[in-house]
Parts: sequence; structure tokens; C-alpha cells
Amino acid sequence: MIIVVTPNPAVDVTYRVAEQRIGETQRVLDVARRPGGKGLNVGRVLAATGTGTHAVLPLGGPAGRWVADALDELRLAHTDVAVTGETRTTVTVVDDRQHPTMFGEPGPRVTPDEWKAVSASVERLLVKAEPSALVVSGSLPSGTDPAVVGTWVAAARARGVLSLVDCSGDALLAAADAGATICKPNRGELLEATGAADERTGALQLLDRGAAVVVVSRGSDGIAAHTVDDVVEVPAIAGVTGNPTGAGDAATAGLITALAARPAGVSGGGAPVVDASALRTAAAYGAAAVLRPVAGEVDRDDVRRFLTNTETYAETDTASAPHDDRTGSPA
Amino acid sequence: MIIVVTPNPAVDVTYRVAEQRIGETQRVLDVARRPGGKGLNVGRVLAATGTGTHAVLPLGGPAGRWVADALDELRLAHTDVAVTGETRTTVTVVDDRQHPTMFGEPGPRVTPDEWKAVSASVERLLVKAEPSALVVSGSLPSGTDPAVVGTWVAAARARGVLSLVDCSGDALLAAADAGATICKPNRGELLEATGAADERTGALQLLDRGAAVVVVSRGSDGIAAHTVDDVVEVPAIAGVTGNPTGAGDAATAGLITALAARPAGVSGGGAPVVDASALRTAAAYGAAAVLRPVAGEVDRDDVRRFLTNTETYAETDTASAPHDDRTGSPA
Repeated sequence: MIIVVTPNPAVDVTYRVAEQRIGETQRVLDVARRPGGKGLNVGRVLAATGTGTHAVLPLGGPAGRWVADALDELRLAHTDVAVTGETRTTVTVVDDRQHPTMFGEPGPRVTPDEWKAVSASVERLLVKAEPSALVVSGSLPSGTDPAVVGTWVAAARARGVLSLVDCSGDALLAAADAGATICKPNRGELLEATGAADERTGALQLLDRGAAVVVVSRGSDGIAAHTVDDVVEVPAIAGVTGNPTGAGDAATAGLITALAARPAGVSGGGAPVVDASALRTAAAYGAAAVLRPVAGEVDRDDVRRFLTNTETYAETDTASAPHDDRTGSPA
Repeated sequence: MIIVVTPNPAVDVTYRVAEQRIGETQRVLDVARRPGGKGLNVGRVLAATGTGTHAVLPLGGPAGRWVADALDELRLAHTDVAVTGETRTTVTVVDDRQHPTMFGEPGPRVTPDEWKAVSASVERLLVKAEPSALVVSGSLPSGTDPAVVGTWVAAARARGVLSLVDCSGDALLAAADAGATICKPNRGELLEATGAADERTGALQLLDRGAAVVVVSRGSDGIAAHTVDDVVEVPAIAGVTGNPTGAGDAATAGLITALAARPAGVSGGGAPVVDASALRTAAAYGAAAVLRPVAGEVDRDDVRRFLTNTETYAETDTASAPHDDRTGSPA
């Protein structure tokens, strides 16, 4: 079982309109609502591919209730921490011609006491549920002390449980400081958080702070795993076009699935070997997500197909699909 | 007490952004949520100006629950009819430079049985609550038989209760057919529903179908009351600038307030005299609504000021404010 923490969940709403135009009243032709936030995308992909998952998340207000109900319907186990602020909503407007426009609400203020309750839930699950990994993914609500991410990482470390953190900014640094097993930013986030001029320098900074491995998703340029001594790289799977939103979250699910299948590397508490095979699994999940119209979904058959063909693809064509590491909910 | 039916209520969400741009991710700087739909705007203005109001509305899903909770907080009495579809949301995006952009969800399908439950609620209130008027305002959810509006009008008529209908299209015609005391479209809606080339011809068509009075709001051109023999007109109140959204709904509230203050004209069942004084009250409420940043609100002091000054204003300057008859929720 894998614990997935989503610090800033969302109701992701997608509006299809005939043509986006500013300053007009536009009839919404189609409405889709789904639970969002990067962690929930990861959790949904894990659940859809048969990996036991337990989501931990702060939820508040009617939007929070909606997320809880939607997770019940998806049969995704979850522990909700009630917060007084209202869970954010994101609205993405799409048409057939222009790029989507996204409106992201700022999200609730989560108080230190509410974060303590989240941490207590994480610790309880670490003790009781014997998880194979802890994933923390997505932005923190504004005003949150990034140290909270370090708390969760340290709790996992104390139990010998692998931790993977896909956060940005100071939360990413806090995860590295606390000794996260894997820090998994995209390249832009890595450079921004560390202030480094290039990927290797940034990765070495996180490793120096305490991360065991730094996995960097490079969108259409593939994915790389940095350790102090080594860099392992695989290209993105070529010839895949579609919806890049959430592809990075699916890649996270693929990576953690690959590592969780190796008993020693995961629950032993030592750093797992993030080799080319694990990265290829991540790339296969990411590519499968691109084929789905919304974030947080993969078709298991697509994953299987890409897992089988990945080496062929990788060797015949490294110019690849427009993967993207962003999710339906911003930052 | 005035019964207000809102056939297609909404959660009206307003997002403030720095600058509207298509194809980008935009941080929402400020979020406002309020219960919307033309009838609820009318009801909120009535309640805010001290007129007893009871809202009747179909509500479904989490958005419906949100509306019900918000009405409780506003202390607006309401009878909710539970429907299986989810109450619609409208999202209006504003910045400081461009016109607002509005995204309107289609709204739920409301089944014939659910409409029967709405009608039963209206009839129960007509019998038990001894209302001075019934107001029906706003669009019907798509797929609704417009005859349902006629049912409500006929029920009011049978009890000798004044009815005012602010609907468009076939629902407006159905209201006239059923003998609505007042049909109150804006000019565009009147021409569109009747197919007439000019306002007087359109008004005569509704009168011929059975309406006792047709009140036409003309935005910045004022407001007119048509009977078979006469047209009474007043200009809009001049020099008022601000937010025109919901001004027409406030004008409806003002009109019904003025008429409800005349015992004979209202509960006697005969057609009330919609004279210049009643229309001026409507104009004063509309102007007061323009001064408020959101629909469904007026400041009582503004109303009082405009009621006192209205004749002076009207006589000194007939070029007037950019009133508008649209509400936060489309059609």
C-alpha cells in the first residue's frame, strides 16, 4: 500500500465552449468535474493500475465534501483532515482551437493545528498500514510552512519507508533536508528551487542536502535519475500525442510502482536503485496518461503496451511526444 | 409576503484576475460565491428592503446544497425541491480593464415529476402563507416544458394573487396565456418571444394572450407599462454608473414592492394600476442596484435617496445610466 499526501487538493472543473472569447457570455457545452491536485492524480493512477493506495488530504467546505464523495465513488481509500477554509476549485476552459485557459483559486489557509492533524494521520498510517512508500505531491496552500513536508519525510524515514516528494520551491528543499528517498521535481522546478544554472548542479544540491536520489522529469526530453556518482537517463516514449496534463503525475505513479515491486529496495529503508528499467516504467505510465483526455487516468493496456515496446521506441526515435509535467491543478 | 420562484438557480462565482488572457494559467486573486438566478436576486433585494419573501426553487447536488446553505445564512426563507441533476454554476471572470467573461453551465434536467413537486410547493404556499404576490423570474432549465410557468400563474390567479413573470421565450408566452398579472420582459426578450418588430406591437400580443399589464425594461432608456389602452413611461435615473448586472431584478423587486403596498390593487385579484409612481420605484431600485458591486443587492439608503429625487432627476436629465437587464446568471 502506498500513502499519497495531497497538500492542496482541488475540484478540477473543465468547461468546453465553442470558442473562447474575452468579454462575452459563453454557453458551457460540457462540464467535467474530477478530484484534482497532483497527489490525487498519482493516487488515481495507482488505484487504476491495481496498487493499493491511501490518500491523506486536508478538505474543507462544500468543495471538500465534493472531493471526499468523488474519492468514495472512485473507491480510493482516503483519510480527510477537516479544515475550516474551503478546498480550492480550478476551472479550465477548452475549445477545439486555442490553448486551454485555466483559472486557479488560491486555496484555503490551513492552520498549523490543521497541519498537525494531517501529520498525525500520516504517522498513524505509517505505523498501522505498513505501507511500501509515502508520496507527497503538489503545491502547498499559500501561507503554509514548507517544513511540514519535512515532517512527513522524517516520519517515513523513521519507519524505514521509502518517500517520494514531487513539490516545488522551499517544500522541495525541505524534503531534501529531511532525507527524502526520492525528490522528483521537473527540470524547471529543480532550477527554480535550487537557483542552479543546470540540472546536474541542481540535483547535486538536493543530494547534498540529504536526498538519496533526484529524479528529474524533462517533459518531451525524457526522465533522469541523479545520484552523487551517476546519472541514468531514458527518453520519453515517442510518437505519443494527446493531453500532457498529469503525465508527470502518472510517471510518478509508474516510478513508485516499479520500485515498490522490489521488496529490498523499498521497505529496507536504504536508497532504492532507480535504474533505467524503473525510469522506463515511469515513462510508460506518463505516455499512457497522454493518451487519456483528463489527468489522473491511464489505460492499463496502454501501460502494458508501452512497457513492452519501450526499448524499441527508445532506440528508434528519441524525438518524442509533448509530455508535460503539469497537472490539472496549477503548481 | 411575496413568493419568488427561481426555476434555474445557480451558484454565481466571480473570479478576479490581474488580466484576462486566453490560453494561459491565471491566478485567481479573489473569489466571490453567491446564490444566483434572477429570482434569487429579486428575493434578496426584497428581503434586504424589508419585504417578507419566500423562495421556491429546485436544488440538486453539492451546488444545490451550497445554495440552500447560503440562503439560510442570508435568512431568506426557502422551500427547496430536491432534484437529481446538479444545480448549475456560473463563473464570471473580471479584471480592471476588459469586459467580464461569463461561463454559464447548462443546468440540470428537471423531470416532470420534479416540476410537479415545485408546483405543489407553490400551491401550498399560495394557500397557507396568504402571499401578496407571486414572482417567477429567470430562465427554465433546458428541456423544461414552458407550460409549467402557466401552471404557477394559474394557481396564483385562482387564489386572487398578483403574479409577475420575468421570463423569456415560450415561458413568457405561457405566462401571458395563463393570464399573468404582469409580464416583465426586457425589450429584447419581448421582441424575441413575440417576433414583433416593435415594443408596442409585442406588448399588445402579450396583452391579447391574457396578460393584464406588460412592463418592459429598456435598460438605460427607462421602463414602460403597457395596457391595451395606454403606455406609461419613466426614464432611468440619470448619472448612475456602476455594475448593471441584476439591475433589472432589483427593478422587479421595486415594482412588486410598490404594488404590494396598495392592498386593493394586489390581493383583490384585479389588474393593479402600474402608474408612473410604481415605475419610478422600480427605476429607483434598479439604480440602487447599479451602485452595488454584485447582483441581488441594494442599499436601502440609496433606494430612499433615488425615490426622493427621482422626479427631479427624471425632469432634468433623461440621458441616463448604463442599466442592463441581465443578471449574474445567463438567461
